[in-house]
Amino acid sequence: MAHPAVAADDADVYLSFAAELADLVRPIVLSYFRTPLEVVSKSDDSPVTIADRTVELRLRERIEQRFPEHGIIGEEIGGKPGGAFTWIVDPIDGTKSFITGFPLFGTLIALTYQEQPFCGLIDVPFTGERWTGKPGQALFGTGSARTSACERIADARFYTTSPDMFANRSDTEAFERISRAARLRRFGGDCYIYGLLASGHCDIVLETGLQPHDYMALIPIVQGAGGCITDWAGRPLTIRSVGRVLASATPRLHADALALIHG
Amino acid sequence: MAHPAVAADDADVYLSFAAELADLVRPIVLSYFRTPLEVVSKSDDSPVTIADRTVELRLRERIEQRFPEHGIIGEEIGGKPGGAFTWIVDPIDGTKSFITGFPLFGTLIALTYQEQPFCGLIDVPFTGERWTGKPGQALFGTGSARTSACERIADARFYTTSPDMFANRSDTEAFERISRAARLRRFGGDCYIYGLLASGHCDIVLETGLQPHDYMALIPIVQGAGGCITDWAGRPLTIRSVGRVLASATPRLHADALALIHG
Repeated sequence: MAHPAVAADDADVYLSFAAELADLVRPIVLSYFRTPLEVVSKSDDSPVTIADRTVELRLRERIEQRFPEHGIIGEEIGGKPGGAFTWIVDPIDGTKSFITGFPLFGTLIALTYQEQPFCGLIDVPFTGERWTGKPGQALFGTGSARTSACERIADARFYTTSPDMFANRSDTEAFERISRAARLRRFGGDCYIYGLLASGHCDIVLETGLQPHDYMALIPIVQGAGGCITDWAGRPLTIRSVGRVLASATPRLHADALALIHG
Repeated sequence: MAHPAVAADDADVYLSFAAELADLVRPIVLSYFRTPLEVVSKSDDSPVTIADRTVELRLRERIEQRFPEHGIIGEEIGGKPGGAFTWIVDPIDGTKSFITGFPLFGTLIALTYQEQPFCGLIDVPFTGERWTGKPGQALFGTGSARTSACERIADARFYTTSPDMFANRSDTEAFERISRAARLRRFGGDCYIYGLLASGHCDIVLETGLQPHDYMALIPIVQGAGGCITDWAGRPLTIRSVGRVLASATPRLHADALALIHG
């Protein structure tokens, strides 16, 4: 996707700032991990919410300091309107992993330009892994991230966080069609599995029920790595999408998966 | 479980040797991870098999050197009969994770005494985590591992590697009954989720289709941490069990889960 009004150099400035944000909150996220979280599902004051809020506040504070003119959308706290640029952050993506000691949760930081995805970062505090993406490039750590060359769904390694995502019958049927056609299906991972796709370790991810803070950061990473990521109708994801996400290693695989989704 | 003929001190000697084995193979396992594995599901000579075999051979070699009188059972290579003690090893538990870049696979090392589980070790090469267990004690790293105090299935955090494990109708129904009763169900993890259970982060694991090299190492860890681990009929797991495994944080939770399995 072209962003004529934004220079490629700008992306580097913003990604380097996103990395600074991730460095800032990584130890805070980890300080809450595997600590007693007795009332997790009980109220807004649950420790997970405290962790989320603490991290989100820290992120917002730093963004407002550095780019006071930018908008901010978070998971826990309402949006702050801005100009052409908006930061969309998810302090802890993978809350159910987080509260059960499962270490593949992440911090997601996206920057949109005129509501289009521009830069994205996935930070995995526990493993110390990080993916970043901008138009034309994705990195895993400091090395290039490239999706696999998989073009046939029969060869595809398919991931989704949980079958429980697919709540109604037509969603479940779409999920089952992809499952039957793929070489292998696996569960678990949240944002982590999009990183695996960007690095060529799996080939398809299908999910639903995602919020903009769950998927906006993934888009520049998957696309920058050479993959495709759209809604289930093949349309670009925007902050107004209904949260049905399909990511694929190659355009041809993506087209085949879209056809399968629609039976 | 009492082992009158084996002193507790012996367990420490064996666990310290098991740790030495895990240290030995950890870099070998990691050297194969996320490398191109083109023909994984194709033949016995697939790279995963090569990784598995290389690691298993190294483990066997070292065990034979140190305890020539002990038996050895591996995943890839046939058994070696021995005296009262037998080592049961799984070089890479979680092969499907391994071949898709998902980092929560592990090396499993068990020692049985007169066919009863005696000592066990889970090593997670990528994260550097390790659980060990012997009669009366389990450790996570160098600290004590204790299961949670969860006694009610309605409060339980339930994990299983994949719903695809439950192949026939009665197995699926048992799995669904536990799922509906539990507070939360999550997928993914292989041996890792038994470690999470031993450390109190989840409360129930239900699986089927496991081999002795998949579950023998888990038993001393779950039991040493205060939990229960049996087959689906509540019987102790032996090397002749049919691979249906239930692990729970407390005896009361275990009894309730067993009742639910049988409707």
